[in-house]
Amino acid sequence: MSGTPPPIDRLAINLATVRQQWNLREAVEACGRHGITAIDPWRDQVATLGLAESVRVIKANGMRVSGYCRGGMFPAADDAGKQAAIDDNKRAIDEAAALEADCLVLVVGGLPHGSRDIDAARSMVANGVAAIVPHARACRVPLAIEPLHPMYAGDRACVNTLSQALDLADALGEGVGVAIDAYHVWWDPELKAQIARAGRAKKILAYHVCDWLVPTRDLLLDRGMMGDGVIDLHRIGSWIAQAGYGGPIEVEIFSKFDWWTRPGDEVLRTCIERYQTYCR
Amino acid sequence: MSGTPPPIDRLAINLATVRQQWNLREAVEACGRHGITAIDPWRDQVATLGLAESVRVIKANGMRVSGYCRGGMFPAADDAGKQAAIDDNKRAIDEAAALEADCLVLVVGGLPHGSRDIDAARSMVANGVAAIVPHARACRVPLAIEPLHPMYAGDRACVNTLSQALDLADALGEGVGVAIDAYHVWWDPELKAQIARAGRAKKILAYHVCDWLVPTRDLLLDRGMMGDGVIDLHRIGSWIAQAGYGGPIEVEIFSKFDWWTRPGDEVLRTCIERYQTYCR
Repeated sequence: MSGTPPPIDRLAINLATVRQQWNLREAVEACGRHGITAIDPWRDQVATLGLAESVRVIKANGMRVSGYCRGGMFPAADDAGKQAAIDDNKRAIDEAAALEADCLVLVVGGLPHGSRDIDAARSMVANGVAAIVPHARACRVPLAIEPLHPMYAGDRACVNTLSQALDLADALGEGVGVAIDAYHVWWDPELKAQIARAGRAKKILAYHVCDWLVPTRDLLLDRGMMGDGVIDLHRIGSWIAQAGYGGPIEVEIFSKFDWWTRPGDEVLRTCIERYQTYCR
Repeated sequence: MSGTPPPIDRLAINLATVRQQWNLREAVEACGRHGITAIDPWRDQVATLGLAESVRVIKANGMRVSGYCRGGMFPAADDAGKQAAIDDNKRAIDEAAALEADCLVLVVGGLPHGSRDIDAARSMVANGVAAIVPHARACRVPLAIEPLHPMYAGDRACVNTLSQALDLADALGEGVGVAIDAYHVWWDPELKAQIARAGRAKKILAYHVCDWLVPTRDLLLDRGMMGDGVIDLHRIGSWIAQAGYGGPIEVEIFSKFDWWTRPGDEVLRTCIERYQTYCR
C-alpha cells in the first residue's frame, strides 16, 4: 500500500542504545510505543529493576529478547578469579533463561591485570566458555561468542576476528555460536568468507549494527548511527542474509557525544528510519 | 665489561616521537648526543628544513636513515586524485633516495571521502603501489607497506593485517616489502605465522615498536612507551629475530598526553632504557 512504511519486525534495540535516557521498564515501554518488537537488555539494567519484574515488563509488552548482554570476561590473574567468572556466567545463563533470551552474548575478556600474554588469555577464554557450556545447554541458552574489534584486545576481548570466534565455537560444539556486530568486523578482509562459513555451520546467533564514525573520538563510546559512518551495511547485511540468517537485526549504539544526549523517542525514531534505509 | 650498558646500535628513533620538541636538525643532533645512530624523519620535517640541508645534517651526524615517513594515501574519489597521489609518492621516493633511506614507509590510505567501499579502496591501493614500483626500483628505494591497526581502516589504511600486506608485497615482487609495527599487529592471532612468512620471503624492511596503553584515550595520539602497555615486545621481537631480521628497531610514539609534553632529552633517555629492557 502506497505510503505504508516498510515493516520493522526484524528490528531489535539493544537497550544500551538508550541507557542514558531510560531504565529497562521505560525503554521497553517506549520500544512498544514505536512498534519495535525485540530488545536486548543488559545485566545491570535487569538487576536494577529486578529479574522477576524485568521478565514481567518484557512479557507484558510482547517483546522478544534478541539477546542478553552479557557474559564473558573469563581471563583472570588467578584461579579464584577464573572460577568467579565462571560462576558469574552461570548466573547470567540463568537470567537469560528466565528472560527467554535468544542467546547470551559473550564479550570474552582481555588480558588479566598485569599480563602481556594474549595467547594465555585466549586459552583462558576457551577454558572459560567450555566450563559454562554444560550449564548453558541444560538451560537451553545458546552462547554467542562476539568477536570484538582489535582495539579492545587489551581490556575487553581477546577474540578479535570472526574466524577466531568460529574456531572456538566449532571446538565447543552444540549450543555455541557467534554474535556478529558490524562495528567490530567491518574492516576484516576475510569477513565475507567467514560469514559464509558461519552460515554453513548454522552458528550465527545474532547480528548487530551501528556505524563507524570518521573521526572516532572515543574508543568505546563513539559509535555512530547507521548511515552516519563508513560501514557498508547493505553489503554486510546481504552476506548475512545469504548465510541464511533471518533473525533480529539489533541496533547497539554507545554514543556519549550524540545519541545518549538526545531524547529517547528521537533515538528510536532514527533507529527505525536508518534500519529501513540501510539494514534491510 | 661490568657496568657497561648494552649497545644501542640497533635502536632507531622515528622523529615523530620528538616532533613537538625539536625540528629535524635539533632532533638529529640530540640523537647524536645520546649515541643513537639511526633516525626516521617525516616528510613535513624534511620539507621544513629543506631536503639538501636535511641530507647534510643527517650525514654530518653520521645517522643511518632507517626509513622515511611516509608515502601512501592512494585511494581517491576520482582519477585526478589517484594520479596526484602517485605523483606525490614519486616525489617521496626521490626524497627517500636523496636521504639514502632504508625504505619508504607506505601508509596506504583509507576510504575516499564519501565512500563505504573498502574493497574498492583496497584495489586502489594495489593499483597505486603498482604504479610507483618502477620508479622505486629505478631509485633503489624499497617500498615498505605498513599494515595499520584496523581502527584506522576508515581514514588511514585499509591494509590492516600483515597477511594482507604480504599478499600485496608478494604480488608486486622485487622491491616491495613490509614494515611491521608492533602497535598495529600485536593483537593478530596470525602474527607469529605471518612474521615467519615475511621472513622466508625476505620482506621485512622495518620493525617499529611502542606500546598499547590500557586505557587508550585517543585513537591516533596515545601510543605508549615500551613497557608501559600490554604488548609482549619480547615475544614479538623474538619472532622478528627468528625471521632473520637484523635491522634497526625503530621507536615511533605519538603521545600528545605524555611524551610530547616532556623534554626531548628525557624522551630519548627513556627510549634507550626501554629499548634495552624490552626490545633486545
